[in-house]
Amino acid sequence: MNIYQRALQLHQAKQGKLAVKSKVAVTNKEELSLAYSPGVAEPCRAIQKNPENIYLYTAKANQVAVVSSGTAVLGLGDIGPEAALPVMEGKAVLFKEFANVDAFPLCVGSKNIEKIVEFVKLLEPTFAGVNLEDISAPECFAIENRLKQETNMAIFHDDQHGTAIVVLAAVLNALELVEKKLDQIKIVINGAGAAATAVTKLLFDAGAQNIIINDKIGILNSQNKVQFDSLRQQVIAQTNRQDIAGGLAEAVAGADLFIGLSVADVLTKKMVETMAKQPLIFAMANPEPEIKPEIALQAGAEVIATGRSDYPNQINNVLAFPGVFRGALDVRARAISEKMKIAAARAIAELAASKLNSDYIIPDPFDQRVVPTVALAVARTAIKEGLARLELTDNELKAKIKANLL
Amino acid sequence: MNIYQRALQLHQAKQGKLAVKSKVAVTNKEELSLAYSPGVAEPCRAIQKNPENIYLYTAKANQVAVVSSGTAVLGLGDIGPEAALPVMEGKAVLFKEFANVDAFPLCVGSKNIEKIVEFVKLLEPTFAGVNLEDISAPECFAIENRLKQETNMAIFHDDQHGTAIVVLAAVLNALELVEKKLDQIKIVINGAGAAATAVTKLLFDAGAQNIIINDKIGILNSQNKVQFDSLRQQVIAQTNRQDIAGGLAEAVAGADLFIGLSVADVLTKKMVETMAKQPLIFAMANPEPEIKPEIALQAGAEVIATGRSDYPNQINNVLAFPGVFRGALDVRARAISEKMKIAAARAIAELAASKLNSDYIIPDPFDQRVVPTVALAVARTAIKEGLARLELTDNELKAKIKANLL
Repeated sequence: MNIYQRALQLHQAKQGKLAVKSKVAVTNKEELSLAYSPGVAEPCRAIQKNPENIYLYTAKANQVAVVSSGTAVLGLGDIGPEAALPVMEGKAVLFKEFANVDAFPLCVGSKNIEKIVEFVKLLEPTFAGVNLEDISAPECFAIENRLKQETNMAIFHDDQHGTAIVVLAAVLNALELVEKKLDQIKIVINGAGAAATAVTKLLFDAGAQNIIINDKIGILNSQNKVQFDSLRQQVIAQTNRQDIAGGLAEAVAGADLFIGLSVADVLTKKMVETMAKQPLIFAMANPEPEIKPEIALQAGAEVIATGRSDYPNQINNVLAFPGVFRGALDVRARAISEKMKIAAARAIAELAASKLNSDYIIPDPFDQRVVPTVALAVARTAIKEGLARLELTDNELKAKIKANLL
Repeated sequence: MNIYQRALQLHQAKQGKLAVKSKVAVTNKEELSLAYSPGVAEPCRAIQKNPENIYLYTAKANQVAVVSSGTAVLGLGDIGPEAALPVMEGKAVLFKEFANVDAFPLCVGSKNIEKIVEFVKLLEPTFAGVNLEDISAPECFAIENRLKQETNMAIFHDDQHGTAIVVLAAVLNALELVEKKLDQIKIVINGAGAAATAVTKLLFDAGAQNIIINDKIGILNSQNKVQFDSLRQQVIAQTNRQDIAGGLAEAVAGADLFIGLSVADVLTKKMVETMAKQPLIFAMANPEPEIKPEIALQAGAEVIATGRSDYPNQINNVLAFPGVFRGALDVRARAISEKMKIAAARAIAELAASKLNSDYIIPDPFDQRVVPTVALAVARTAIKEGLARLELTDNELKAKIKANLL
């Protein structure tokens, strides 16, 4: 059986991948009266008196909703909320297995921005964080933006920001290898979807100065931007400061770094040969990358990263989101800021720094150091930025993260 | 420490009562590729092809949302969604411990009928059933009614229907004891709240003919009904066919059965003495009943039931909702009908029938026979009524319920 048949079999045998678990026994009247009526009235009253007590007496502090409309699922597209549920259950499984976060999948029966926003807002009493997942662009930008403004939860669209964090981590280490500086290199991003936009924004926020975006319509420039939504437009406006025109070939000439979040086989050997010395190639189209790693190597690429686990340097979101949420939850963060994301990227990068080479610019997804290290960096930054409801000392923070990962 | 202090301590020690559990391991690349990308694409495609496959490949078939606005919590009133979370977690714990149902608490940040209805409708891709809980009247009637019309989930407002089912079960057996018939007795219901209305409706649907409702304003009659919402009005309209007037004293004179869902100490010894021979007293106000059981006995009551666990005949919803949902889920029911509720009540009653006496008209909440028996009755009725997406034979049904309760 191939991987797909085996996956189907596993899902059927287990009837899905997620269950609810009771942390208390209810086998007699005494236990019933403690977990439920009348005893439960006391934590209720304590929360009514001081809303912050909800973090002490309920599971909210560790609860994240995985919310999807099922409009942009994996490479499958708009398959609807029902068909998206296996992915969201899988995401919740990763949250639990990697970071001991209690994530629950909520596949919503609407594509409407307003309805999804209203839905998520109503989740705030129950959940400390919301991981938006597989929601199509441009709706995902508006939804996330509204929720950041209108809630005090840790809101994170993983397709955008998880990818951006891991890409930034890998870029930082790849630049170490070739001894170049982020603020001095020319970067080409191929694709202008949700992930590409988030990568562009985070690279700028981390110090990049020179980014060109190339999309199906060619290089985005002052003449070639009109069809984008306003939120994406704000990011695009900072790119291509020399306002060049053309296609991917024109874009990559002299570039130090290619970041593909697009489709298979669009980057040719010839194009790579026109790039700057020791070019860095991030070809993350799935399942087939923008250029085959072997060809990129022949063309002189110094470092190649892909989305695949069968090549070195896999850009895998699981390096980011479990630790990001672990850290955000453990200080009861009111938001997940750009600085928290950059801190996460730097933490991931540092874990690979001591053994850095062309085939190892980011840690393995199963490297046990990743989640606690990312969580600590994110939590510290949340405190520094005044986004933490709970301000812990560094030692308290380390102890809490450790305890919560057991 | 008293029960409240111990309950608070328990809630803090466990950080709430609920967690999420992964049913699959993800400790290496192989397991990751089965539970998540790329393997997960196959169950997604299978569900996209045939939506019913969601019951095979995800946990939806066993998932119930416990939805509350926190507007009518226990005896605490409108304490808000945050303060209600311990109760909803407790409810989810009972679902898990009694019926192995994966229930998740969702305390919604709004009291608005339209917003709550929209919220619950968006849950339909993820949940097979919704247990509405602790939502104030009259909003609860409109919300439930809308959801029944606009969704195909098993919708159940436990405060109404759980109570009604257990009351009906107890009434059926109490009538056995005194050898009276439901369609021939006079019933007085004190209170016109959500539970009282549901009890009235279910008693009518089970065959009762003569019910008087007495509320704070006195006996509800043609002159004394105007302040009620239209849904409640439909039930009230069937009561008091002789259109009598007065207060509780006038109502209970000659009555066979008193059902109190009101406040402490409103039923006097003298009133009980005016009732028909062998009167049945259901005094369910919490924590203090409408009449102290000792006094009711002195006044000649044949059977006394209360909401308390320290007296015989506790009317406890946990006798109903776990089995009702177990049965509904196991046939993928599109709704929970009046007939399914009556079947549940008859099943509960029958379990106590062989040992029937004044102190034992319903089974103990921890009687292990209750959930499978109720589930079977509910599932059979769903199939008979054409409300089951999955039509199983009786043997298949028994085997499935048994397997799901392990």
